[in-house]
Amino acid sequence: MTTKPFHPPSRLLMGPGPSDVSPRVLQALASPMLGHLDPEFLRLMDAIQFQLRQVFQTENMLTLALPGTGSSGMEACVVNLLEPGDKVIVGVAGYFGERLAEVATRAGAKVVRIEAPWGEIVPEAAVIEAIRTESPAVVAMVHAETSTGVWQPVDRIALAARAAGALTVLDAVTSLGTIEVPVDEWGIDAAYSCSQKGLACPPGLSPVTFSERAVVAMAARRTPVSSVYLDMQKLARYWGPERVYHHTAPCSLFYALYEGLSIVLEEGLAARFARHRAHHAQLVTGLEHLGLRLLAPPAHQLPTLHAVRIPDGVDDLAVRRALLNDHGIEIGGGLGPLKGKIWRVGLMGEGSNTNHVLLLLAALRSVLDRLS
Amino acid sequence: MTTKPFHPPSRLLMGPGPSDVSPRVLQALASPMLGHLDPEFLRLMDAIQFQLRQVFQTENMLTLALPGTGSSGMEACVVNLLEPGDKVIVGVAGYFGERLAEVATRAGAKVVRIEAPWGEIVPEAAVIEAIRTESPAVVAMVHAETSTGVWQPVDRIALAARAAGALTVLDAVTSLGTIEVPVDEWGIDAAYSCSQKGLACPPGLSPVTFSERAVVAMAARRTPVSSVYLDMQKLARYWGPERVYHHTAPCSLFYALYEGLSIVLEEGLAARFARHRAHHAQLVTGLEHLGLRLLAPPAHQLPTLHAVRIPDGVDDLAVRRALLNDHGIEIGGGLGPLKGKIWRVGLMGEGSNTNHVLLLLAALRSVLDRLS
Repeated sequence: MTTKPFHPPSRLLMGPGPSDVSPRVLQALASPMLGHLDPEFLRLMDAIQFQLRQVFQTENMLTLALPGTGSSGMEACVVNLLEPGDKVIVGVAGYFGERLAEVATRAGAKVVRIEAPWGEIVPEAAVIEAIRTESPAVVAMVHAETSTGVWQPVDRIALAARAAGALTVLDAVTSLGTIEVPVDEWGIDAAYSCSQKGLACPPGLSPVTFSERAVVAMAARRTPVSSVYLDMQKLARYWGPERVYHHTAPCSLFYALYEGLSIVLEEGLAARFARHRAHHAQLVTGLEHLGLRLLAPPAHQLPTLHAVRIPDGVDDLAVRRALLNDHGIEIGGGLGPLKGKIWRVGLMGEGSNTNHVLLLLAALRSVLDRLS
Repeated sequence: MTTKPFHPPSRLLMGPGPSDVSPRVLQALASPMLGHLDPEFLRLMDAIQFQLRQVFQTENMLTLALPGTGSSGMEACVVNLLEPGDKVIVGVAGYFGERLAEVATRAGAKVVRIEAPWGEIVPEAAVIEAIRTESPAVVAMVHAETSTGVWQPVDRIALAARAAGALTVLDAVTSLGTIEVPVDEWGIDAAYSCSQKGLACPPGLSPVTFSERAVVAMAARRTPVSSVYLDMQKLARYWGPERVYHHTAPCSLFYALYEGLSIVLEEGLAARFARHRAHHAQLVTGLEHLGLRLLAPPAHQLPTLHAVRIPDGVDDLAVRRALLNDHGIEIGGGLGPLKGKIWRVGLMGEGSNTNHVLLLLAALRSVLDRLS
């Protein structure tokens, strides 16, 4: 029996991720396997930790890449820092805030939701007030809500949490590598991200970082972490000098992550953030010319991901299908209550460039003209 | 800042995995990214399910690849099939049996351990007797114990479990693709494996399969699964016709898995198993000539992984270091109580070939001569 080889069609990835990756990263992926305890591979892991600390702007020792997608990072932060009965404040204004609340509920935590409509920020004042009145163990916020394109301010919340003795967890899945995520400066105790958006690597790894306060809290747990796979104390012993076996590291993805992070650091964080802002501005101007409006208020719009309101009478699926089939351009649809109401346009990592913006705008105009 | 590119050194991977992969698989890895909801990618997922069913010898609808290593598959099977207070029988005669027991304990299950010394099989009669007396909800066995090289008989245990109304979970991490794992014929209700051993793909994915009985049991749960990331009901909705978002599939690893499974099925399972048996026999004869003995009794020795007793007075690390540095050959060390007492030699997937065996034997002879 012979199976047909799979050759992915040519695509411009302008949805919520994965984003396009550099040929350097693709080439790294194709390097031969290495044993996960090979001295050369251990050196690569050390180098990745060094790189991730720079990207997270932290000196946290416990900074590494989990063997799973960004969702595994969310779960790792929640299940390691919360014990059954602990109180957690979760900011919910989109799909990923909802998911944080669900993961915390399953961990047996008492979840206090501070909500806002999808497309708005969670009001900082309400979260800070809840920190005062609820005395939570953990405060968990989504920095860049991938379902709405909203850029959530979190620095004052983290400050209030620290003052109240609570740990702050930050979902940086769609922010890391595209906007500032200064973990140490803000006093974030645990942050997680993914490999396939702002870092422009293939999906499958979740960079995470934990502060010393978080490490102390995990060491003082009264109950074991429900997950062995995501148990940070076991993962710390694997990534630390003892190298105690925990799982078989996905070496190919690590090669790619190292190369992708090298590209990020060669560009420099400040230049990378400026590039994301510039192409965001270009996109917004172009969308305005097409008469299209964004869901998020301008003051809280991410430069990374844009939720574009679908005009009345326009068929969501027909437009996305035409973009994909006629132009090879992928944009995302809406999740949950926003299904059919928005498109999601990502400008992430390698994908945040002027030609992507120009081509998308031109193709969108052409498709909308044809379908109207 | 410019970072040094990483070029993995040339290695013959003859440890417990990852194993060597075909250049076809490496090439597939380097294909460009695709969105996880791209129609072409969804077709690839369907094709992978079709391939995995053949490899697991099952018609189970719920057969897919989890976005994590083999350890995530173990955790998925345990946390989805067990609820707090449920009784589970676990066969423990090595590191991975121990881990199964630990994962089940953390899931809140009442764990009944049926044990044997590391290097022996768990006595089938003792497990079958315990099934009668304990009436467990689940019986969990390690088919191929990666820490000892022992091939555990499980067919009669699965039969007894089914007769008693218990679900059988099988750890097929080191067996799938190298020896028979006839899931339907044996009446296994959940099995998990990894991508980087017998399937000769890069690490990072965990093929799993669940029987209809298991699906019914999961639907009838009284409590939610502790893990959202590994919640099989959510994963089933993502892999099913609805394609409800759950995580971003690691597309590069999927390209590689598809290509690797194509190679497995082109060879054919029967031929592949025969090849593993033949090179196993060649290795065993060669080891005997070197005066080296295996830990496992011959009747229960896997053809995939060999625990070789380190002779008295021979320095474990010095030998492995010389093999790696002078010959580019990786073999594994012992885990837990077998640390320093055994080497682990894998003949898995692409790596089960006569030249690997000949070279390892020659290099081992040379190193032992030099170091003695």
